[in-house]
This record gives sequence, structure tokens and C-alpha cells, in this order.
Amino acid sequence: MSAERGRFITFEGGEGVGKTTNIQFLADWLRQRGVDVMTTREPGGTEIAELIRDRLLKAHHGERMSDMAELLLMFAARAQHLDALIRPALAAGQWVLCDRFTDSTWAYQGYGRGLPLSDIAQLKSLVQDDLEPDLTLWLRAPLAVGRARVAGRGELTDRIEAEQDAFFQRVEQGFAQLADEHARITTIDAALPLPQVQAAIVAAVAPLGELA
Amino acid sequence: MSAERGRFITFEGGEGVGKTTNIQFLADWLRQRGVDVMTTREPGGTEIAELIRDRLLKAHHGERMSDMAELLLMFAARAQHLDALIRPALAAGQWVLCDRFTDSTWAYQGYGRGLPLSDIAQLKSLVQDDLEPDLTLWLRAPLAVGRARVAGRGELTDRIEAEQDAFFQRVEQGFAQLADEHARITTIDAALPLPQVQAAIVAAVAPLGELA
Ligand SMILES: Nc1ncnc2c1ncn2[C@@H]1O[C@H](COP(=O)(O)OP(=O)(O)OP(=O)(O)O)[C@@H](O)[C@H]1O
Ligand SMILES: Nc1ncnc2c1ncn2[C@@H]1O[C@H](COP(=O)(O)OP(=O)(O)OP(=O)(O)O)[C@@H](O)[C@H]1O
Ligand SMILES: [Mg+2]
Ligand SMILES: [Mg+2]
Repeated sequence: MSAERGRFITFEGGEGVGKTTNIQFLADWLRQRGVDVMTTREPGGTEIAELIRDRLLKAHHGERMSDMAELLLMFAARAQHLDALIRPALAAGQWVLCDRFTDSTWAYQGYGRGLPLSDIAQLKSLVQDDLEPDLTLWLRAPLAVGRARVAGRGELTDRIEAEQDAFFQRVEQGFAQLADEHARITTIDAALPLPQVQAAIVAAVAPLGELA
Repeated sequence: MSAERGRFITFEGGEGVGKTTNIQFLADWLRQRGVDVMTTREPGGTEIAELIRDRLLKAHHGERMSDMAELLLMFAARAQHLDALIRPALAAGQWVLCDRFTDSTWAYQGYGRGLPLSDIAQLKSLVQDDLEPDLTLWLRAPLAVGRARVAGRGELTDRIEAEQDAFFQRVEQGFAQLADEHARITTIDAALPLPQVQAAIVAAVAPLGELA
């Protein structure tokens, strides 16, 4: 077990902006520099949390999931993820790269669904206590860019992805608001070609460690 | 739709004390007196909430569910149950009889697991706002009595039922504490023969309506 706590880096942004692609890139880049890295995602990341994710994202027929139930399931999955995986890894000195985290909850359930931000703040404090990401990379791109990128993927649309345009516009405004408020969030222009996106990510991450 | 809001009655107590038996008895008794009654249970009560119940109660192998995740799943199921079923039924004038409710969360997750009662209070306020049962019947019996009653049932033990004796003793102390604090809770001696238990239930319920 390493003496120093690992770094906690989260990737945020709308659908198809490149979160999964770039988390893999960064993990490889860090490993080449000798960093012990773990990648994970939310909602999910552990067996139990992934089962909660299934509950959250699966469409139900005939019964609408209440917004508060959705919010509480998000934080239930997060509590499990933090306790079973993220906190132990950070304590052991691993760097944790996470595909979405609480900023997505603010953006989707808060700004998107319209749940009171004060409710989210209460739940965050119950579940995270004072744990915050050391760095959050907000991959920002126009909605149409993300959609065009995933259009060919042929995956089924989940319960949240099935929302209307106005919902996703509120989500984007939410991310912009969060980036304004928190110094830990770096905005990355994800509409640029991948090499430029990755150069920006490296520039944001390098100061976190002694990385060449 | 009836003009008057229905009554909300919850049944609480340890395993095998007679909650399910007596909720059926009370529903029949009320129906015979012309009351429109719905029976339901927690965790669960709707399709989505029952799926969350499965998540909650199923044993996982290799991964321990964190106490906070358990608590949040309980309240996620409750939020769904309240929004999709209980509030609409009460508003339509139905009486709702519920097999376990938030007092079980105080007793099991608070007193049993040892989660801070202030955390439960915050979640309760997020999910219930000012909704409280009009009457709670705490069916109280020694642990051994409830166990002897369910011994022949041959059901599989779930994740919470698999706890140790000391856990269930803390749960009982929790119910006793709650009964002390809240006038809405009536303690019923559930170790007595069924006809006496049911007479006590009728005596507690009759004042809620014009019931003969
Ligand atoms: N900067 C870029 N330029 C062009 N294509 C890109 C760029 N970044 C990612 N892509 C491509 O866009 C597609 C979506 O990327 P990716 O799956 O990483 O997005 P995501 O943010 O994880 O999406 P989701 O929100 O659906 O999980 C992939 O095919 C990826 O190769
Ligand atoms: N007062 C009583 N005297 C004797 N037997 C009883 C009494 N009350 C209930 N029983 C019997 O005890 C068994 C357990 O009752 P029941 O299933 O209603 O309990 P419960 O509180 O719902 O249990 P659980 O917590 O497991 O759901 C049943 O077989 C029931 O008929
Ligand atoms: Mg992705
Ligand atoms: Mg029962």
C-alpha cells in the first residue's frame, strides 16, 4: 500500500462527447508513466452498484419512476461504489478515473429534471462527506456533435437517453453553471479532433503528479 | 373521488409477529363496514419498488452492501411507493394499510445497523415531506415467539433476516423507543392469542372513522 492517497479524476459531459474514449486514453497515458490507475463508471462500478444501474436505466412500462426515486437510486449506487471501490482504491494509492460522477447528478437530476439543488446537496453530503474529485474534465460539445458520434453505435436507448431536447439543453446549462462555480472543473473543447482533445486532457492532468 | 382523504395505517414489528395476518384481518373488517381499503407493503408495493426490494434483500456473494446504500435503497423504494401508489390512493379517499413503513427504517437501519438517526431524519423529510401515518400498530412479541411462528414456513432467509440476535434486540429496543416518542404508535401485545390481538387492533382503529 502506497503512502500517498491516489488522485480522483472524473469525466463529465453529455452523450457521445468522448468520455469513455478519453478515460481509456488517460489511463494508458498514466500507466506509461508508472501510475497505478483504476477506471470505473457511474452509475455502477461494482456488482451491486451495476445492479442498481440496471434498475435506474431500464424502461418500465405502465409505471413512471418518480424523480426522487431516481435521485435516491443514483446516490445508493454511489454510496456502494464509494464504500466498496473508490475509497479503498484511493487509500491504497491508486488513481481512480471515473466516467461520470456527482456533477452528472447535478446536471441531469437537478438542472434536467428540476429537482431542488438543496436536496442533491443533502444527499451528496450524506454519501460523499468531504470527498471531492481532485480534477473534473468536462468534455463540452454541442448536442448534435455527440449525437452524430454515437449514431452508428446501434445501442438501445435507455430511460434517461430517451428524454427530449429541452432536457439535454438544461443538462448542458447545468454543466456550464457547475464549471463556473468549481475550480476543480476544467472545460475541454470536445468538438475538436481527438488529438487536440487529448492534448488538452494531458495539460490538465499533468500538474496533479510528477508526470512528464 | 371521495372528498375526504383516506386514513394511513401502518403495521410494524419484528419477524413473525403477525403483521401480514392482521393487515388482512383489518382490511376485511373495514371493508365489511363500507370502507374502501388498499393493502400494500414495504419495501415494495409497486412494480418498480418491488424490483428495488429484490435488490435490497437478495444476498450478494463477495460484495457487502454498504449500510448507506441499504438506507438509500429503502428510501428510493419508499419515494416510488408514495408517489405512484400511497399518495394518490389517500387523495382519492382510500384507506391505505401498509405492512412496514418508516418506523422499520428507524428500527432496522438506525437502531439495528447503527446509522445516524439524523441521516434517516433527513431522508424521511426529503421523501415524506409532512406525510405521517394516522396510526401505527406496533405488534410487539418476544423474538422467540415470532421465530416459532415462522419456523414452519420454510421460506428462504433474506439478507436482513440473516442478521444476529443482538441486531434484532437492537431493532426491538428501537421500536420501543419510537413507541415512547410518538403518540401515533399504539403498542399491541402480539404474543396473545389471535382473537385478543385482533380485538386490540379494532379498538385502536375504530376512533379513526365512524366504525361500529
Ligand atoms: N474528438 C473526437 N472526434 C471525433 N470522434 C470522437 C471524438 N471523441 C470521441 N469520438 C468518437 O465518438 C464516439 C463516442 O465516443 P465515446 O463513446 O467515448 O463517448 P461517451 O461520452 O462515452 O458517450 P456516452 O455518453 O454515450 O457513454 C466514439 O465512436 C468515439 O471514437
Ligand atoms: N397472535 C397469534 N397467535 C398465534 N399465531 C399467530 C398469531 N399471529 C400470527 N400468527 C401466525 O404466525 C405466523 C406468522 O404470521 P405473519 O406471517 O402474519 O407474521 P409477519 O409479522 O407478517 O411475519 P414477517 O415479518 O415474516 O412478514 C402465521 O402462521 C400466523 O398465522
Ligand atoms: Mg461512455
Ligand atoms: Mg409478513
